[in-house]
This record gives sequence, C-alpha cells and structure tokens, in this order.
Amino acid sequence: MTDASTGATADRIAALEHRLAEVEDRLALLQIVAAYGPAVDSGSAEVTAAMWTADGVYDTFPAALAGQAAIGDMVTGEMHQGLIGSGAAHLLGIPHIELNGDSAVVTNYSQLVLREPDSDGYRIWRTGVNRWEFTRTAEGWRVVRRINRQLDGTAEGRDLLAEAIDPADPGR
Amino acid sequence: MTDASTGATADRIAALEHRLAEVEDRLALLQIVAAYGPAVDSGSAEVTAAMWTADGVYDTFPAALAGQAAIGDMVTGEMHQGLIGSGAAHLLGIPHIELNGDSAVVTNYSQLVLREPDSDGYRIWRTGVNRWEFTRTAEGWRVVRRINRQLDGTAEGRDLLAEAIDPADPGR
Amino acid sequence: MTDASTGATADRIAALEHRLAEVEDRLALLQIVAAYGPAVDSGSAEVTAAMWTADGVYDTFPAALAGQAAIGDMVTGEMHQGLIGSGAAHLLGIPHIELNGDSAVVTNYSQLVLREPDSDGYRIWRTGVNRWEFTRTAEGWRVVRRINRQLDGTAEGRDLLAEAIDPADPGR
Repeated sequence: MTDASTGATADRIAALEHRLAEVEDRLALLQIVAAYGPAVDSGSAEVTAAMWTADGVYDTFPAALAGQAAIGDMVTGEMHQGLIGSGAAHLLGIPHIELNGDSAVVTNYSQLVLREPDSDGYRIWRTGVNRWEFTRTAEGWRVVRRINRQLDGTAEGRDLLAEAIDPADPGR
Repeated sequence: MTDASTGATADRIAALEHRLAEVEDRLALLQIVAAYGPAVDSGSAEVTAAMWTADGVYDTFPAALAGQAAIGDMVTGEMHQGLIGSGAAHLLGIPHIELNGDSAVVTNYSQLVLREPDSDGYRIWRTGVNRWEFTRTAEGWRVVRRINRQLDGTAEGRDLLAEAIDPADPGR
Repeated sequence: MTDASTGATADRIAALEHRLAEVEDRLALLQIVAAYGPAVDSGSAEVTAAMWTADGVYDTFPAALAGQAAIGDMVTGEMHQGLIGSGAAHLLGIPHIELNGDSAVVTNYSQLVLREPDSDGYRIWRTGVNRWEFTRTAEGWRVVRRINRQLDGTAEGRDLLAEAIDPADPGR
C-alpha cells in the first residue's frame, strides 16, 4: 500500500466519522424532543427539568420559567396535575433541526389536547410553535432556552416560525 | 503501512459499521411506525397484520388482539370499515426509541381523528399512548406487542409514558 | 498489508459511504417536510415556492397549482393570509419515505388547525394525506409533485395511503 492510498483511506474514514456524528446528533435531538411529552404527561418533574441545563429557561405562557427548579415546579404544580389527572396529551410535531457544532436549534409545533368527558373525545386547547435552543454537554444535548408561542394570529408565533427557515435554502 | 495503523484503521471501520447499523435501525423503526396509519386507514388488513410477528399482540380497547389473524380482522371488521368509509385518520406521533440489539421499544402518541360532516371539519375521538415492543426478524423489525392506552386521566396511560423515560438520563 | 486486505478495506469504506448517504437523504427529506409548516404559517411565499422545482405541482383542493409562482401566490393570497392572521397551523405528520436513488416518495398526514376565539381553543378544519414526489437537484431535494387529498370517506385519500405500503414488505 502506498502512503498516498493510506492517506486517502484515513481521509475517507475521517469524513465518514464527521458525517455520522452529525446524523447521530440529529437523531439524539429528535429523541429528546420525543421524550418531552412522556415526561410531562406522566408527571415526571425530575426528568422534565433535567432536559434543560441547570439555568435553562422555558419561556412560555403565562411567564418564563428560569432554572430547573421552576421547570420541575410547573410539572408538580396544581394546574398541570389537574390537566393530567383528567386526561392531557402534549403532542410534539416533527422537528426542523439546525445543527451548528455544539449548539442546535429545533423548531416544531406542539399541541395541548384535553379529554372532554361530555363528548367522548378530546379538544385542542393550545397549538403553538417551539424554538428549542440546545447545547451539547458532557451528558448529552440539553435545552438552554425553549420559547413557546401560540399560533393565535399574533406576530410572535409567526416570527418564530420564520426564524427556522432560510429563503436562500428551503431545505436547510 | 505499519501493522499498528492497519489495526487502527480496521477498528475505526468496525466502529463506524456498528454505529451506522444503530442509526439504520432507528430509521427502520420510524419507517414501520409511519406505515401504520397508511395501512389501517387504507383498509389494508394484510399489511397491517404483517407488521406484527405471527403471534404478536395488539393490546388495545376494548380487548387484546392476539395473532396476525385477529389484527387483520380488526381492519376488515364492520367498525373499522365504517370509520374509514366516513373519514378517519390514525395519526402517529414522533417516536421515542430505545434500542437494545435485536429488540427495541418505541413509545409514541396516537390519535384517531374522524370526519364530522356537519361542522365541515374533524373531531378527535381518541388520544393515547403506545408502547411498541419490536423484535428483529429475518424480514426486518416486527411488533411482538403493542399496548395502546387512552390518556383519559386513568393511571395506565401515564404509567406507559413513564416507562419510556429515565430519570438518570433524560436524553436516553 | 496485503493487496487483499487493502481491497477489503476499500470495499467496506465504500459500503459505509453508500449506506450513510442513504441515511442522510432520509434526514434531508424529513427536514424539508418539517420546514413546510413554518414556511406557510409564517407567510413566507418565497421559501414555500422554492421547496418545489421551477415547474413543480401542488395538487390540492380546490385546484392543482402548477409552478413556483402559483404556489407562492397561494401563500400571499387573501384566503391564506386570512387564516394565518387569525391563527393557523399546518401540522405535518411523521414521514414514510421510499428512496430510489435520485428520486423519493414521502407519504404523510397533514392537518390544518384553526384558532377558535370563542372556545379558547382550536378546531381541525382539514385532515388529509400527502404524497410528495421528490427529485434530487444540485441544490438538494425538491418537490416535483405533491398531492393532498382529504380523508373524508372518498376513495382518493385511501388510495394515496395504499400506494405507500407494500403487502410483500410492511417495513418497506
């Protein structure tokens, strides 16, 4: 084997390693977003909080929650416990992922669907957009900031959606 | 090329092969879950049944269906045919995937949405959680057992959601 | 290193490159489908149109839109602007992907969910199936034709769903 072909082999392997790591990052981000619903709808405050960094922020209605303790308190709080006790599902949509080394932005829709005993069915209480800002930590991807806004005709929700897309590259 | 560098090359290639196979498994599991709605909503009993192993179980309301014949009969049955004849969609949520060699557990939400002619729209009849237990066969991943429970305030649904997540590793 | 082992190494690397490219294609197709909602619900006509090839077709109710200009006009049109101005979400389901070299077919569900101010909630106006026919271009995957049909009990929607699945291979 020549030195040249040995070098070419090493380059091809390094390229594969780099590309595969990106693919694994995308699937890891999908996985953590897919765990959010199971975490909150089972009332698991600890797991929910641990998806964020220690000082991570969940900016949602009616207020921004700052830090893991505040996020965990949302799950154990009276309002959330009431919802899951009568039947609730936090449905998370397919993720649009923008990956940049050790940070990433995921944009997706979410809905909060509630049991309606009187109609033998469910109603949609909330439908909004989420911008999840992730950072890579020693333990894996964690949320630095998640912003949730309702798609209720106001501009904030539409602006978050617009941030996810790039006129110069619709497949970005 | 030294023996040492040859060995290192082989190790890197083997590591890539192992990691890529896991990625392909995750995408194959996503694909089969994404085929479930098209299978049942098109009334394709044979394809639906073939997603399970020969003696696979679909444990759902009002009873557990055991074996491919029972699962196919659900699709050709009067109730299901009535639903798809008037407009029905089985919507499957993003999958949380736990992969363990030749077995895997997928947890996701599902909804059954029905056409309501009077309102020019659709209503949500059911919203629940699914735990899909897969095994790898010679023909690919197949369902050994799928459990579906409504998120209606009872504990069973919340318990299935809790099984998917790990307090020690929220990104698992 | 022998010539034989060098050849075997090259073959294994080539196989990895081929398989990884397929995985990347699947994730790229997921990404573009995940960008559709953010594009239309933010009113971004240019990005929406650029997801299609120049003469791509969006065959939907009440008419087929042919070419990027027609697709962009849908987004800037009075009806669509009215919807997003009062609160609308185009929710896209998990994609079933059939990849064939430089072309691909994605089948998934979609819903159009609208804000209902009177009920402090949202209603589902439309629920249908999409068949997206993609081609690989120098700029990435683009839509050649997308067909959207409502799941309202008519055969067209069920037929599109049936096209996605293969009785001989439920995991295809």
